[in-house]
Parts: sequence; structure tokens; C-alpha cells
Amino acid sequence: MRTVYLADTDAAGVVYFARGMEMCHEAYEEWLVTIGISLPKLLQERKLALPIVHGEIDFFRPMFCGDKLQITLQPRAVNDTEFAIAYKISLLTAPDKALVKATTNHVSINPLTRTRVSLPSVIIQSLP
Amino acid sequence: MRTVYLADTDAAGVVYFARGMEMCHEAYEEWLVTIGISLPKLLQERKLALPIVHGEIDFFRPMFCGDKLQITLQPRAVNDTEFAIAYKISLLTAPDKALVKATTNHVSINPLTRTRVSLPSVIIQSLP
Amino acid sequence: MRTVYLADTDAAGVVYFARGMEMCHEAYEEWLVTIGISLPKLLQERKLALPIVHGEIDFFRPMFCGDKLQITLQPRAVNDTEFAIAYKISLLTAPDKALVKATTNHVSINPLTRTRVSLPSVIIQSLP
Amino acid sequence: MRTVYLADTDAAGVVYFARGMEMCHEAYEEWLVTIGISLPKLLQERKLALPIVHGEIDFFRPMFCGDKLQITLQPRAVNDTEFAIAYKISLLTAPDKALVKATTNHVSINPLTRTRVSLPSVIIQSLP
Repeated sequence: MRTVYLADTDAAGVVYFARGMEMCHEAYEEWLVTIGISLPKLLQERKLALPIVHGEIDFFRPMFCGDKLQITLQPRAVNDTEFAIAYKISLLTAPDKALVKATTNHVSINPLTRTRVSLPSVIIQSLP
Repeated sequence: MRTVYLADTDAAGVVYFARGMEMCHEAYEEWLVTIGISLPKLLQERKLALPIVHGEIDFFRPMFCGDKLQITLQPRAVNDTEFAIAYKISLLTAPDKALVKATTNHVSINPLTRTRVSLPSVIIQSLP
Repeated sequence: MRTVYLADTDAAGVVYFARGMEMCHEAYEEWLVTIGISLPKLLQERKLALPIVHGEIDFFRPMFCGDKLQITLQPRAVNDTEFAIAYKISLLTAPDKALVKATTNHVSINPLTRTRVSLPSVIIQSLP
Repeated sequence: MRTVYLADTDAAGVVYFARGMEMCHEAYEEWLVTIGISLPKLLQERKLALPIVHGEIDFFRPMFCGDKLQITLQPRAVNDTEFAIAYKISLLTAPDKALVKATTNHVSINPLTRTRVSLPSVIIQSLP
């Protein structure tokens, strides 16, 4: 469950669009934990990074401060060095009605040379 | 429990200082809910606002991506139109050791005229 | 010119992806000024809003703290109630080499009913 | 000059308090450039970091989307390993009237051991 906080909103009274992308990324970080990837360890070791090369987001209904959200995600392989995550954000009380749909595409790189490397096996095994 | 997400961090590898203040504000928003104040309703009705007039924060130890935090708070009255909240952020696994201490001072105003008004009774009753 | 600040970066050492979208939105806000639309006035009057219904972003090269960026944009009409803005972010010193390309699609709505209304004529006239 | 962007604001219609601190940090980063310190180089070399150990901010008047701000700062030495920056934010059109005053205290550390080291001479020479 993700609550919408005041910091997520803007003067138009709804969630600022880029904060919608940030919420999806939080769900992605929690997914990494569930498949056994430690982002803190990746950040410290500097041997592998998974930067976003593409992101997109569709807003179907506005989100307001205090809203209780559910964010679900679906990963998929793109190729040997890239995977994508599809997100759906809905109200906890109406999980079938999407407020937002989004996608992020991640590539597997060596952060020092910034060249692509094969996806780690733990990610490949987690992609349906 | 508040997880530190990548968005909270900066290129120095730790939580960006202003995001520490943001985390405290999230805890404040959750406290408002527990005392029966609906921030979404305040924002919509535009009869009362509780802006911050002063904030301060001390960092004792850095916070890293993936850290599991506990944020506790202690409200107190300042005067008829102002209250303050003291925050302590620690690791869930070491709740006695403060990583961060912070304070926010809030005044009660009419958001249209931006003049001070008495604190709502529900807040006064919640201040020890 | 937009400098990359520490707040734009994350612990992976580069600009956090959603902050790339934020930078584009800043350029959009400056474009609104140039065509004679006052966002502050829109926000205050609450008669018209231009929320984003779709956003997308492609990262070709990383952006680092201290980078001096140039953000250019190209608006286009989608239909009577919707327009899109295409953005290109490059280094000031290499304006032809895109670091980022992005798009935002905006609809024209009545913010109280949140139903679509015709684009204001000042926007229509500014779309090539 | 710093324009207030929509991302700086929240659903209360004014600048979100922690974004006020962020604006001050931008001014601090520009000051580092003027005294000859390259933050990008510090971040890359990982030999010296200047984390904030204390921050505080006072809001005298609200800031709105579209406001054109001037941020001035005044550095001072605290001790061998610490310096402080005092900030004043005002409207460009009324530079004498502070909207915000803030302070950040920075310590000089080895980012790997996170222990204090002497301030670099280039900073000491820049403190009045």
C-alpha cells in the first residue's frame, strides 16, 4: 500500500506526473527485493547497474493527497540485456480500475564503462 | 516503516537532506490521520491550512538506499496559533540510535487571507 | 540553460529518471509563458487545467551533476482537446547529440468537473 | 534567478517546504562553482564529501508557481571541519523582503570512512 503524500502533489491539486513515475519505481525496488536482488549492494559494488532507458506513463484518473494506492507490476524480458516492467496503480478500494498504467525498460550495464552486459541470471529466472 | 528508495538518495550515495525533511512530513501526515484531521478535506475546503513556518533537521548518521526506517514524532503546543512536531528517524533494527532529528513548526491560518487563526480544537486536544 | 543539481541525481550517480521528466516540464512551463499563458493564473482561477495524460521518455546517455543542459521543445496538436510536446535534452556544448528525448500529452479540462473542454485559442494558435 | 516550477508546489497551492531547502542547495552548488570547487569531481573522486549535518528554514511569506526568486547566500566558518551557509530568498522584484531564510551546516569528511577531515583550503579562503 502506498499513501499519496502532500509532497507527491502539486498546485493543481493532484499528483504531479513525474511523482507517478517515482511511485512505480518504488514498486520496482520492492520487486527487486522479492527476487533476491539487493539494490544497495549493486550501488555499493558498482559492478552492475540497471538504468532505465525508456519510461512511459498514462493517467486515466487523477490521484489526490491521502489516496491509498495499490501498485501491481508485471516484468517481462525484452532481450539478453533488457527487461521491462508494466505497472498498474489503482485505489486500494477499487483494485480493478486503473488510475495509472506505466512501463519502465531497464538495461543491464557495467556502470563504469556504461556498456551493456547480459542480464543477471536471477533476473532472467524471474521473468515469465 | 519507511524504506529508503532510490529517489530519496543523491549522487553522494546517501539520502539527500531535503528528502529527510520530506520523510518527516510523511510521518506528520500520518499523525494528522490518527488524531482525526483529514488533510485531503482541508485541502479541498480551503478554510484552514497548517503551513510550516520553521523546519530544522540534524543528521547524525547517513541513510542509504534500502534502509528500513522508523520515524517517531512528538507534538507540542507553541501558542494559540502554532504547534511544533519533533521527529526522530532511526533504523528499524536500532530504534534507540537516532539517525536524524528534526522539527517542524506549523501555524494555523485561513488559506485565503493567509492570516493566523486559532488552532482547531482537535489539534489542541492532541497536544500533550 | 538548465544545470543538473545534486537533487536531480540518485545513488547510481546519474540523474534519477523521473527528474528527467521534471526538467522537461520546466521547459514546458517556460513555453507556456512565451505563448502568453499564465500557469499561476490558471491555478488560481480554477477554470482550466492542462493535465498530462501521457508521458514518455528515452534516455540515450546519462546526465551527471553539474551538467549544463539545453532543453528544446516542439508542440503539436493532437485533437480539439489535446496537444503534445516533444522534448530534446542535450549538453549545451553538444546541442545536436540528444541525451534524452521525451513527450508529454496534455488535455484541456475543467478542473472542477474534470471533463475535457476545447483547447484555449492561444494554445491552438501556438501549435504549428 | 530561480523560477518556481509546478514541481516545487503542493496541493496547498504554495511551495512545498522541503523544496525551499532544495532551492537553497542549488544556490550553494552555484557558490561552490564560483569558489572553484567542482562538486561533480568530488562525487567522482570520492576523496572528500561535504554532507549537511544541520539545516533550518524559516518561511515568512508563501512562494507561488511562477514566482521569480533571487537567492543570496553568506558563508561562514564554524570550525576546522565545518562551515555554514545562510540563505535569503526574496522576489526578484522586492529583493529586500525575505520570503525565506535558511541555513545549512556542512562538514568536511572522507566519504569512505565518513570521518571528519579539515576543510579544503579553497573553502577556508572563501569564508569571510
